[in-house]
Amino acid sequence: MQNNEASTSVDTDVSETMHSIVAGRELEGQGGTTRAVDPATGAETGPEFTLLSSEQLVSATSAAEEAFDSYRKATPQQISDLLTAIAEQIENRGEDIVATAMTETGLPQARLQGELARTTNQLRLFANVALRGDHLGVRIEPALPERSPLPRPDLRQKRIPLGPVGVFGASNFPLAFSVAGGDTASALASGCPVVVKAHNAHPGTGHLVGEAVSAAVADQDVHPGVFSLVYGRGADIGQELVADPRIRAVGFTGSRSGGTALMATAAARPVPIPVYAEMSSVNPVFVLPSAIAEGSTAEELAKGFVTSLNGSAGQLCTAPGLIFVPTGNAGDEFVDCVAAEVATATGQTMLTPGICEARTQGADRLATSAGVNEVGRGTEGQTANAPAPAVFSTDVARFVGTPELSDEVFGAVCLIVRHDSDEELLSAAKNLVGELTATIHLSESDSADLERAAALAELLEQRVGRILFNGWPTGVDVGDAMVHGGPYPATSDGRSTSVGTAAIERFLRPVVFQNAPAPVLSAAIRDENPWSLTRRVDGVVTLADSAGDGGSDV
Amino acid sequence: MQNNEASTSVDTDVSETMHSIVAGRELEGQGGTTRAVDPATGAETGPEFTLLSSEQLVSATSAAEEAFDSYRKATPQQISDLLTAIAEQIENRGEDIVATAMTETGLPQARLQGELARTTNQLRLFANVALRGDHLGVRIEPALPERSPLPRPDLRQKRIPLGPVGVFGASNFPLAFSVAGGDTASALASGCPVVVKAHNAHPGTGHLVGEAVSAAVADQDVHPGVFSLVYGRGADIGQELVADPRIRAVGFTGSRSGGTALMATAAARPVPIPVYAEMSSVNPVFVLPSAIAEGSTAEELAKGFVTSLNGSAGQLCTAPGLIFVPTGNAGDEFVDCVAAEVATATGQTMLTPGICEARTQGADRLATSAGVNEVGRGTEGQTANAPAPAVFSTDVARFVGTPELSDEVFGAVCLIVRHDSDEELLSAAKNLVGELTATIHLSESDSADLERAAALAELLEQRVGRILFNGWPTGVDVGDAMVHGGPYPATSDGRSTSVGTAAIERFLRPVVFQNAPAPVLSAAIRDENPWSLTRRVDGVVTLADSAGDGGSDV
Repeated sequence: MQNNEASTSVDTDVSETMHSIVAGRELEGQGGTTRAVDPATGAETGPEFTLLSSEQLVSATSAAEEAFDSYRKATPQQISDLLTAIAEQIENRGEDIVATAMTETGLPQARLQGELARTTNQLRLFANVALRGDHLGVRIEPALPERSPLPRPDLRQKRIPLGPVGVFGASNFPLAFSVAGGDTASALASGCPVVVKAHNAHPGTGHLVGEAVSAAVADQDVHPGVFSLVYGRGADIGQELVADPRIRAVGFTGSRSGGTALMATAAARPVPIPVYAEMSSVNPVFVLPSAIAEGSTAEELAKGFVTSLNGSAGQLCTAPGLIFVPTGNAGDEFVDCVAAEVATATGQTMLTPGICEARTQGADRLATSAGVNEVGRGTEGQTANAPAPAVFSTDVARFVGTPELSDEVFGAVCLIVRHDSDEELLSAAKNLVGELTATIHLSESDSADLERAAALAELLEQRVGRILFNGWPTGVDVGDAMVHGGPYPATSDGRSTSVGTAAIERFLRPVVFQNAPAPVLSAAIRDENPWSLTRRVDGVVTLADSAGDGGSDV
Repeated sequence: MQNNEASTSVDTDVSETMHSIVAGRELEGQGGTTRAVDPATGAETGPEFTLLSSEQLVSATSAAEEAFDSYRKATPQQISDLLTAIAEQIENRGEDIVATAMTETGLPQARLQGELARTTNQLRLFANVALRGDHLGVRIEPALPERSPLPRPDLRQKRIPLGPVGVFGASNFPLAFSVAGGDTASALASGCPVVVKAHNAHPGTGHLVGEAVSAAVADQDVHPGVFSLVYGRGADIGQELVADPRIRAVGFTGSRSGGTALMATAAARPVPIPVYAEMSSVNPVFVLPSAIAEGSTAEELAKGFVTSLNGSAGQLCTAPGLIFVPTGNAGDEFVDCVAAEVATATGQTMLTPGICEARTQGADRLATSAGVNEVGRGTEGQTANAPAPAVFSTDVARFVGTPELSDEVFGAVCLIVRHDSDEELLSAAKNLVGELTATIHLSESDSADLERAAALAELLEQRVGRILFNGWPTGVDVGDAMVHGGPYPATSDGRSTSVGTAAIERFLRPVVFQNAPAPVLSAAIRDENPWSLTRRVDGVVTLADSAGDGGSDV
C-alpha cells in the first residue's frame, strides 16, 4: 500500500464548473460539457460538468493500473478500513447527496435516504466480507511424498483480483448502483481499483459521492489511482473504457442495448474480459387460484401489486411488468381490484425525459397491440415527466404468440395475462426468457396450489435468478444469500450476482503455488494462517481457530 | 431420473463401419466418413467412422435437453454412482482402449496406461465431490421479521446446473481430456448432460470410451440423452454444436485458433454462453543464479529439463517452451549441459502428421530467426512423424523485441533466453502474456534467490494459473487445489480451471428462493439438510453434523 501523490482536497463549490476526479485530482475534460436536467421541470440544473475526451481517459486507467500494483497486496484489514471510511465519508455528505439527487432524479427524499443507508450498509457489509476473507477461496493440499504411483506436491490455491474494473452507474439507483454502489464496493473489496463512468443523468450526485470516495482513499493512504470518476459521453468514453487494455473486468447496470454493446466491445478486444451487465427484466408474477379465492385477499393483493408497480415510478429493475392471473370469478375479482387500485394511483416524476418518452412509447405499443385491453390507468403527476401508471391485459395464447409482449417497458406499466388452466400457465412460464425474478402467489394451505407452485418453481428456476413467494419482487435484500442476476438477457452472465456478498467473486480468479518455499508465500496461503481464514485443507473445510486479525500486523 | 428408452448395447465389432453414439444408440452419419491415421506409419488404420451432418447434430442436443429435465434433479448419490460406473466401465475396456490409443496417437503404452488411471481416478474424485455437494454453494439466511428498518425475508441460495454442455476432446490427451475426461466428468458432476465432439485423430479410442459411458448411463437408469458422442468435421459440426441453442456451455482443449473460433461463435449467439477453452502456453521456466551455482546441479537440472521437454514428444499443454537462464559461467555451464543432454534425446512419434508438420515449421522459424542460435538437437525417431528435439537460445533484448518468439511451438522445442541482470529477468517476465504455468528454480538456502523468487512470483501471479518451484511443469495433479488455467490466451477464461474439483463450478449458476413454503424447497436448501451439506448459514460456514446420505433415500 503506497500513496505516490499528496492527497488533495477535491473542490466542492457547485457554482463552478465541475470536472472528472482522476486519482484524487480534478481533471478538466476536453470533450465538451453537460449539465443535469431536473426531470420535474425539464430545465437544466446545477453546474456544468466537463467531459473527458477518449484520449484523456488513459489518465484514469493508467492510474488504476499503477495503483493495482500495491492495492492487490492490501491486507483484509486495509481493504476493510477503506470501505468503512468510504461509508463514513458518504454519511458526512448525506444531506447534500440526497438533496442533489432529488433535484437530478426526481426521486422522493424518503426513497433516496433509504438508498443512501443501503449504500453505506452495503459498503460496511463488504468491509466485513473483506475481513472474513472467505472469498479468497483458499484450498491447501499438503505434500504427500509417499503417495503412489506419484507423490503429491504441496499445492496452495488462492483467488487474486483481476485488475482495474470499469464500473457504469445506473440511472435508477443514483447511489446504491452508482459511483459507490455494489459494483464499486465488490470490486474494491476484491482488491481491484475502480474507474467509474459517471451517469450523466445525475452528475452532481455522482461528484459528491466521488469526493467522498476520494477523501476516504486519501485518508487511508491508499494509492489514489484506486478510484477515479470520469465524465464523458457513453458512446465514446464508455466504449473506450471497456476497450482499454488496462481494464480487466466491467460492471454495468442499465439497458439491454447498452449492455450488449459493451459485451461486444469486450469480446472483440485482443484480450477479452468479462462484462457483468444487469440489463432488463419483466419480473413475472404468477397468481395461483387459491391465492385469490377470497374477496379480501383479492383486494389486498391488488394493493400490494400496484404499490410494487408504481414505487419509484416503476423504475426498479425488479418491478413487476407481467402478472399471470387465472380466468374465472376469483381472477376477475382480482383484475377488478387492480383496475380500481391503479385508478387511484398518481404518476411520479421519472428519472429523465428520455426514460419517460420511452415509457410512453412502450405503453402506447401495448395499448394499440391487437388483443390487448386496458384494465386501468391512474392520473398523471403534477410535474413534468410523470405519466399515469397503466395496466393492460391479454390472454396466454396472444402472449405466447406475440414475443414483443414480453419486452420490458421501464416504468409503471404492467400486462396481466389470463390463463384458463394449469397447462396454459406452465406453457406461458416455459415461454419466458431470462429474468431477474419471478414471484408466485399461492395459498400455502391449499395442496393444489402447493403442487402448482412446485411445478412452476421447477420451470422458473431455469429462467430466473430469484424466485419469491407471497411477496413482491421490488426490494432486494443485500446479504450473503441474495442473487440479483439471472440468465441472459436479464444479465450478461447468469453465473453471477450483482447484489450481495457473492458479487465479490466476479472480480477474482484462482492461482496455485506448487512446492513454494515458505518465504515466498503470501499470508492467505501460509501454514500459520495469519488472517485466520476458513480454508479447505486436504479436502476438508477448516474453520479458523479464532477471529482473524485481518493482517493488521502482517 | 427416468429412462425413456430401452438401453441398447452399442456395437463393438471394429471390422464394421462405426457411427456416432447418440443417447445410447448408434446414429449413422450423413456427412461423409473418416478413418484414423497411425502417425508412426502415416497409414490409415481401423474402421471407417461415419460423420454427422450438421442437420443430424440436433438429435444429440435435443436428447441432452430432454435428459436435463430429469438429470438436473439427480441426487448427489445418483450422480456419484454414475461417475463411478463410468470409471468401472472404462476399466473393463482398459486393455482395448490403451491398445487402440497406441495405434491412433503414437503415444507409448506406459503413458497411456497412466492416463487411463488418471481418467478413472478423476471420475472417482468427481464422484466424491458430487456426494460432498460443497459445489452447490448453499447459503441460507433465515427470516428476521424484527429487523429494522425492514424485516429480512427467508433466503436460500443454491447453485444449479447450466444445462447441456458441449465438450471438445483434445488431441494430446486421448483419455484424460477427451470423451470421459475432465470436462465431461465435471459437467456430469454438476448435473449437466454432455455432448462430446469426438476428436477425429483418435476416433476408435473415443468410441470405446463412449461405449463405456453409454453402458454406465444405461446401467444406472439415467436418461440416455445425458451422454452423446458425435463424429463430424470440426469446422461445421463443431461450430454447430456451440451455436445450438440447447447447449448452455462449452469445454474445449486445443489450439488457440480453434478456441477463439468457438469463443466468437458463442459470443455471437442470440443467447451467449460461456466457453471454457484451454488453448496455448509456453510455460516459462526461470532458472535463478544460485540454482545452478554448482556443476552437478547444472547437469541434474539439464536432465530434468530435457525429460520434461521431450516427454510425450513435447505435446503436453504444460511443456516448458521457454527457459530464462542468466549469463555468466553458471548459466553457460547449464546451457552446455542442456546441449549435451538434448543431443542424446530421440524424437518420438507425434500425434498426427499435421501436428508434426506445424512443429517442424515452428522449429524452422526459430532456427532462422535473427539473433536466435541453435543450442542442441537430438536425433529423429525411427518412425514417421518423430522429429528431433531441439533447443535454441537468444537474449532478453531480442526476446522482448520479437513477440513471435513467445508463440507456442507445440512439440519438443524450447527457446533459452539469457539475461544479464535481475532487471532484465523481471522485464522479460513483464513481457509475458497469459500462461498455464511458470516455474522458478532457485536455491532455497540463498537469500538473494529467495528475494528474486518473491519478486518474480509477484509478477508471474498476474500472468499464470500455476507457479511451481524447483520442479518441472509437466504433470498436473488432479485434486482440490489444482489450477489448470490462466489468463487469456492460455485459456478463454482465467476465472476457471479445467483440472481439479474447482472445474465443476464452471457449469453452475446461483439461484435464490425467497420465503418459499417448505414443500417447494429442494433437498439442498431444506432446513433438515438431508444431504448433509456444508452450508453458509447466517454468514457462518456450518459443517454438516454427519456424513451425508447423498440423497439415497430422498
